[in-house]
Amino acid sequence: MDSFDEMKLLLLSNSTNAGQEYLGWPKEMIREFLVKHGIKKCLFVPYAGVTINYKEYADTVQKVFAGLGCELESVHNQADPAKSVRESDCIVVGGGNTFKLVQLMHEKGIMEPIREMVSGGTPFIGWSAGANVACPSMKTTNDMPIVQPVSFDTLNLVPFQINPHYLDASPLGHGGETREQRILEFLEVNRKTTVVGLREATALWYDNGHISLKGIRPMRVFRYHTVPVEYEHGSDIDFLLHPEVV
Amino acid sequence: MDSFDEMKLLLLSNSTNAGQEYLGWPKEMIREFLVKHGIKKCLFVPYAGVTINYKEYADTVQKVFAGLGCELESVHNQADPAKSVRESDCIVVGGGNTFKLVQLMHEKGIMEPIREMVSGGTPFIGWSAGANVACPSMKTTNDMPIVQPVSFDTLNLVPFQINPHYLDASPLGHGGETREQRILEFLEVNRKTTVVGLREATALWYDNGHISLKGIRPMRVFRYHTVPVEYEHGSDIDFLLHPEVV
Repeated sequence: MDSFDEMKLLLLSNSTNAGQEYLGWPKEMIREFLVKHGIKKCLFVPYAGVTINYKEYADTVQKVFAGLGCELESVHNQADPAKSVRESDCIVVGGGNTFKLVQLMHEKGIMEPIREMVSGGTPFIGWSAGANVACPSMKTTNDMPIVQPVSFDTLNLVPFQINPHYLDASPLGHGGETREQRILEFLEVNRKTTVVGLREATALWYDNGHISLKGIRPMRVFRYHTVPVEYEHGSDIDFLLHPEVV
Repeated sequence: MDSFDEMKLLLLSNSTNAGQEYLGWPKEMIREFLVKHGIKKCLFVPYAGVTINYKEYADTVQKVFAGLGCELESVHNQADPAKSVRESDCIVVGGGNTFKLVQLMHEKGIMEPIREMVSGGTPFIGWSAGANVACPSMKTTNDMPIVQPVSFDTLNLVPFQINPHYLDASPLGHGGETREQRILEFLEVNRKTTVVGLREATALWYDNGHISLKGIRPMRVFRYHTVPVEYEHGSDIDFLLHPEVV
């Protein structure tokens, strides 16, 4: 896992809090990440967009990034998506439907190039579905399986799973599974995997070989047959990077 | 679609309302279905169970069905699952995780035998995930993709999709997609398919070539680029069986 030391990741639970402007809550966090790593130009992956088309999606994100002093091009406009990944200074993966995102990342042949580049030090920003794909698989998504990707395997940049938009409550009187029950089902059939329930308006920031939680809410960590544990901003959570020694 | 005329289906949104006993709300509906079709013995498919093992799950359901005067055996105890399907008087598919259910139905080789038998007149009862698999695919499930089935294709007994546990509201202040938004995403990439949002404590009953809604809540029908429509108990909803003429 030495290659982890080169990595620079910003993994956001969600783009936008209810009622706020697009990418409102994480804007200053993204700015800090861009400035710290000297990023002037990003490659955007819009493939999680379903009811928004790629151009509209890319334009919306491009405006936010322009306000942060950063150019942004979309991979859907590139003749050779894999080549554009290999030449990029920073990869940005937006949220939407995770099944659609993973299907297209496989189909367009960018899963492995992104993994290689980001493992080697190219900074990576992802929110919601875009944070989920930084994990070994998409098996902790909340999304509807509207399309079938060739594989559920994703970038495997971190050795644990993120559940984005992690939510404590279920709607009152509803008999469907709570989010925690769903994650416990995941653990039942994936017993060696750790799951991070990442609440809205929080993020994981990785650089210099360390990972930390950003945002004011705690995160909730689930492991098979153990009681879930809450970690606050400022906690040492590097154990997440070394699942084999837990 | 002439073979539909032989079919007898009871497709329940959910097994149990919050705070009630297991299979409490649909018990009398199941009894009516069993009596009407002269069913004395059922074959149970427990493969959606994840945090409950198959034996516990089958025992729980067997007790309820015994109270309705009906024997119940579980397919997980059968040496030849496909043969046991072909010899059964009624197929009962329980809820749980739809990905797990579909994975196992494919792996155990019972998808096609169940389709053949039920198309030919063997009665079928399913709840939640078990209702979802009566549809062409599992692409309208709410469940977490904790395992990857070889295919999302399911029994294709009815020519529309069910979204079980259909829910109007999202938890207050949460930025994740509402159920309706998820279904609209499904329609965006599956434009010719009709989706029935089946609220808890409701069911679809099919026999004699007709389908009807049971339960006191309306169902919500979604089609691409049209305004969703609500149908009450007693409405003529046979249009669902003829999507090509809509």
